[in-house]
Amino acid sequence: MTRVGIINVTGYMGAEAARLLGRHPQAKLVSVTGRSAAGKPLGEVFPHLAPLGLTIEEELGEVDAVVSALPHAASAEALLPYIKRGLPVVDLSADFRLRKAEDYEAWYGTHPTPDLLSKAVMGIPELHRDEIAGAKLVAAAGCHATAAILALAPLVRHGLIEPDVIADSKTGISGAGRTLGLSYHFSEANEDVAAYALGGHRQLPEITQELGALWEAPPPRVTFVPHLIPMTRGILVTAYASLRRDTTTDQLYDLYASFYETSPFVRVVDRPPATKQTLGCNDCLLFPTFDERTGRLVVVGVLDNLMKGGAGQGIQCLNLMLGLPEAAGLQGLALYP
Amino acid sequence: MTRVGIINVTGYMGAEAARLLGRHPQAKLVSVTGRSAAGKPLGEVFPHLAPLGLTIEEELGEVDAVVSALPHAASAEALLPYIKRGLPVVDLSADFRLRKAEDYEAWYGTHPTPDLLSKAVMGIPELHRDEIAGAKLVAAAGCHATAAILALAPLVRHGLIEPDVIADSKTGISGAGRTLGLSYHFSEANEDVAAYALGGHRQLPEITQELGALWEAPPPRVTFVPHLIPMTRGILVTAYASLRRDTTTDQLYDLYASFYETSPFVRVVDRPPATKQTLGCNDCLLFPTFDERTGRLVVVGVLDNLMKGGAGQGIQCLNLMLGLPEAAGLQGLALYP
Amino acid sequence: MTRVGIINVTGYMGAEAARLLGRHPQAKLVSVTGRSAAGKPLGEVFPHLAPLGLTIEEELGEVDAVVSALPHAASAEALLPYIKRGLPVVDLSADFRLRKAEDYEAWYGTHPTPDLLSKAVMGIPELHRDEIAGAKLVAAAGCHATAAILALAPLVRHGLIEPDVIADSKTGISGAGRTLGLSYHFSEANEDVAAYALGGHRQLPEITQELGALWEAPPPRVTFVPHLIPMTRGILVTAYASLRRDTTTDQLYDLYASFYETSPFVRVVDRPPATKQTLGCNDCLLFPTFDERTGRLVVVGVLDNLMKGGAGQGIQCLNLMLGLPEAAGLQGLALYP
Amino acid sequence: MTRVGIINVTGYMGAEAARLLGRHPQAKLVSVTGRSAAGKPLGEVFPHLAPLGLTIEEELGEVDAVVSALPHAASAEALLPYIKRGLPVVDLSADFRLRKAEDYEAWYGTHPTPDLLSKAVMGIPELHRDEIAGAKLVAAAGCHATAAILALAPLVRHGLIEPDVIADSKTGISGAGRTLGLSYHFSEANEDVAAYALGGHRQLPEITQELGALWEAPPPRVTFVPHLIPMTRGILVTAYASLRRDTTTDQLYDLYASFYETSPFVRVVDRPPATKQTLGCNDCLLFPTFDERTGRLVVVGVLDNLMKGGAGQGIQCLNLMLGLPEAAGLQGLALYP
Repeated sequence: MTRVGIINVTGYMGAEAARLLGRHPQAKLVSVTGRSAAGKPLGEVFPHLAPLGLTIEEELGEVDAVVSALPHAASAEALLPYIKRGLPVVDLSADFRLRKAEDYEAWYGTHPTPDLLSKAVMGIPELHRDEIAGAKLVAAAGCHATAAILALAPLVRHGLIEPDVIADSKTGISGAGRTLGLSYHFSEANEDVAAYALGGHRQLPEITQELGALWEAPPPRVTFVPHLIPMTRGILVTAYASLRRDTTTDQLYDLYASFYETSPFVRVVDRPPATKQTLGCNDCLLFPTFDERTGRLVVVGVLDNLMKGGAGQGIQCLNLMLGLPEAAGLQGLALYP
Repeated sequence: MTRVGIINVTGYMGAEAARLLGRHPQAKLVSVTGRSAAGKPLGEVFPHLAPLGLTIEEELGEVDAVVSALPHAASAEALLPYIKRGLPVVDLSADFRLRKAEDYEAWYGTHPTPDLLSKAVMGIPELHRDEIAGAKLVAAAGCHATAAILALAPLVRHGLIEPDVIADSKTGISGAGRTLGLSYHFSEANEDVAAYALGGHRQLPEITQELGALWEAPPPRVTFVPHLIPMTRGILVTAYASLRRDTTTDQLYDLYASFYETSPFVRVVDRPPATKQTLGCNDCLLFPTFDERTGRLVVVGVLDNLMKGGAGQGIQCLNLMLGLPEAAGLQGLALYP
Repeated sequence: MTRVGIINVTGYMGAEAARLLGRHPQAKLVSVTGRSAAGKPLGEVFPHLAPLGLTIEEELGEVDAVVSALPHAASAEALLPYIKRGLPVVDLSADFRLRKAEDYEAWYGTHPTPDLLSKAVMGIPELHRDEIAGAKLVAAAGCHATAAILALAPLVRHGLIEPDVIADSKTGISGAGRTLGLSYHFSEANEDVAAYALGGHRQLPEITQELGALWEAPPPRVTFVPHLIPMTRGILVTAYASLRRDTTTDQLYDLYASFYETSPFVRVVDRPPATKQTLGCNDCLLFPTFDERTGRLVVVGVLDNLMKGGAGQGIQCLNLMLGLPEAAGLQGLALYP
Repeated sequence: MTRVGIINVTGYMGAEAARLLGRHPQAKLVSVTGRSAAGKPLGEVFPHLAPLGLTIEEELGEVDAVVSALPHAASAEALLPYIKRGLPVVDLSADFRLRKAEDYEAWYGTHPTPDLLSKAVMGIPELHRDEIAGAKLVAAAGCHATAAILALAPLVRHGLIEPDVIADSKTGISGAGRTLGLSYHFSEANEDVAAYALGGHRQLPEITQELGALWEAPPPRVTFVPHLIPMTRGILVTAYASLRRDTTTDQLYDLYASFYETSPFVRVVDRPPATKQTLGCNDCLLFPTFDERTGRLVVVGVLDNLMKGGAGQGIQCLNLMLGLPEAAGLQGLALYP
């Protein structure tokens, strides 16, 4: 059984990866690290993970594969030794999502290991399944980006829409992580909704890169506006696009269904989905529709930001890299209500 | 002091009107009705209104002005006698918002009193202040519509944008009223976000009508998608539009500031607003901005759906109709946090 | 593999049982019924259960064991044929929880099959493990009752406290089920807390019966006050009792730890637990402590009302009845945050 | 018109005091301070207070009365100059709530100005109305303490109960203030309930002091357990006590009604109250009842922790000190829903 380690288990992404790997039927979580909590039982930091019986370590022990839940920059640095040793590595941070170092630099600053960018594969199995299966370094895509890309990819690949789209995203607050901040203070965030990152959000270049690769020139224009809403988990993206040629609702539905036919975690649905239908599971539900009055396409996509938008997608990639069934350890149904 | 009555005080809109009128310095709430609860003390249905000492009646007593919080169709019928008597009437339902009977019919069915439509004034003081002051019948605009219209009106009137806009709206659940429904059941609605009315929402024609009146031909295309988010009060609309000619951020801000210069309840702000900043007060905060990468205009507007999006706006209109200061009884600050 | 059927899958308890049995490693969910939804795909009623590929039926098909999620009275009637055939039956309703028909009658009305009461076993494995393993008819205990009983049982069995206790319980709203009601309407229940059933709650006799069986005479007096708090899942009970003889904190902790030593789902913790630590999992966390100033015992217990307080406990009982490992299908960790 | 200043307007208590004083009909908010934000417009820190047009200052300007919203210790020090000048001072912190310096020291550490303790009056107008009216230094009682004391005071004064009570309190998270902390991080606090301060909460001595003053010897034993629940505002206390002599429900109700007859903000209600019924208003609703099975008294009390449990109560005291009507500036009805 593959021995897996998690770097930085003390945030929400790391904890979610531990929840999944700790019950994975074909992989064994053997080691977890955490900068400030080294030496503590994992159950002291996260009581829900106490049954795993692990202790947080300074450095990973013997492992066959690595998942990093460190923030960007720190992640690339910490992963370098494992990458060099040729271990399968999944990075949940943004460090290896962008193909071009200048894109990374524009949004995040200098990349610690820019030459590795060309070796990494973007961790969206629905678009890059085969590449992921053959890769040693995979970067699970961002939560907003995954939702927006999956919502629009079929339209783009079939040349159905103009290269000018809007993604209006609504996210639960766990996406901001466990680090404290006034915007995430309960009394401020509860009973409230606000747009943020109106000057540009770091997951925009992921969307542009991935959709751009599917489009013919000219490069697409993407307006992406995220909103913070008062719930813990879940992302709903409402994507707006203009049609290039006439299509019927049935054709639209069929196009999505066939695009995602071999993807176990994308479900094309015939009624507006709700984020709650994906709570704690790895599904992404897509609902493509028309605004008949304006001819505009409106696609609604939902997922759990820590699952298909994070750790779940990471494990999905890891499964492919290890030659396991894509859905291994990810078959839990959503928690509802 | 003007004696005011509320028809159908037993829903959220009626209760909010009672909260405001019950503490209004220049009007006196003297009578409230409620279909099923007639005979009961108001404080039995709404304990927070017990201090008003009112009893719910079958029919209004002697009043000088009327506010109706009935649903559409029922509202027009119930208001007819008061309209005939020439009393100042504010309707919080949709019955008198649309100028054309065919628009009403397309969205709501046959209008009970279609000939009155031409006599009614749309209750958005920021656009129709003088007409409202001279009117006897005013229809307070819908909650989503108010937010979307106020967010876009300055751009439209100045011909700054293409007549093709998107309004992505996020609303708290009190907008759905007090009538039970699975979508509003706590366990379903909590920790959830979903788009609804994707086939067309009844407040769309209000938006089209009001923005259309400001635009030159051709009539604007409006895509409006509302979303239900897990909070009680508040609406945030994110409006997207394409520029017709170059503008700077400063010009944009000035344009909004001057457009709303004389409007006591619209505040143009220089940072992204949050719905919580308007909780329980009659303000609408607007934040106009560019997406610099795509040149697209993004305007964020927030308000409390039961206040500026409902009863508060109704009282604002009533003040104008009665020759009172526009802000009388509406000066309470938002409850924060 | 044992074929299991669920009667009345269309409520939250039934859906939770389906979530668990649909992924159970040693049982197969083969049939589900639902009164009003017969003929519909299960995924139409509950999209999160669509991956199970089941259709809701009028009557159960061929099964080897039955779980009922019907309301009381209806449940006993529907289960009768299966009980007669000798199939292992787990009832999630209150129909078989009380040993005395007069207790049932006092709280619920006439029992449909009172002679079966003596054959049923109370479904709290921590107190009745062996009886359950040998039973054909088990009634999973109520959600509040499970929390209160597990919190107090060790104290009672060891004669540590006076037979006069208080259980102040705080519950998420899913405990009220999927049936609509004003108290569970989002706008009413959100941002609110209220006590209910102050005249007596139906789970009180369960608490009295189970604790009473552990006590010596006289029968205990139990004051039980439930409160509705604005969250979906989770129960926290704060139990108060007066000491009969001196005890140290260490002794108290040891007493709990040894009492639950063989119970895989009860964890005695050394810091105040939070309901979120049990979200979606079958754990009950207990924190026994003193109020040093008054010498009063305060025991805090938390669980997920649909899991250890409902369907999870039911499956735990079913496992025992079928000779399976007690924790089969229940090893998922809590979803956090 | 009395000119009032607020020290430390930048927390929730200070902001709430500003919301109330900024619209007070017989007092004028003229000056506000805030340690870190001096020089900023108040509307920059709290956009909902922008309409007040105030700038945060380093020190108060010319004022006739002072409200302090500083934390304990800092508050006493900052108030000293104003106390010396004989200005009416209301302290929202705990610095002047306890009569005995040793009590303060046991819970908070050394008191900065212990000799002033004897000059201060406890700010619960329902118990100390006349003293407050004649005082220059009043300490508004704590949020939990106010709820617990008001819930039990009538029983105690009439010698109806044994001097051994339990107060199980459930509070919204704004009670913890605006300072960041993991327990108040949205993702941790949402969908969660937990007991805290099980080793003793700082408002316990207030409860003991105030109830003790009403009791005959021996001093009462009070077990007080607060719980954090996922809402922003509101406290519900469930108080449990044992009867000393027989009483009927009617007698109980009458006793409460007559005890609070002259108190404009305490309403004795005949159905279980909900915190939402007091949102943003200064009311405390009390529901006294019996548990008939055990003869135990159960009293439920609700209030808004920032209003009757904080700033609202402070203004109520200030009104009395200034010879104004007790309810001046506090007549706003609750925001519902």
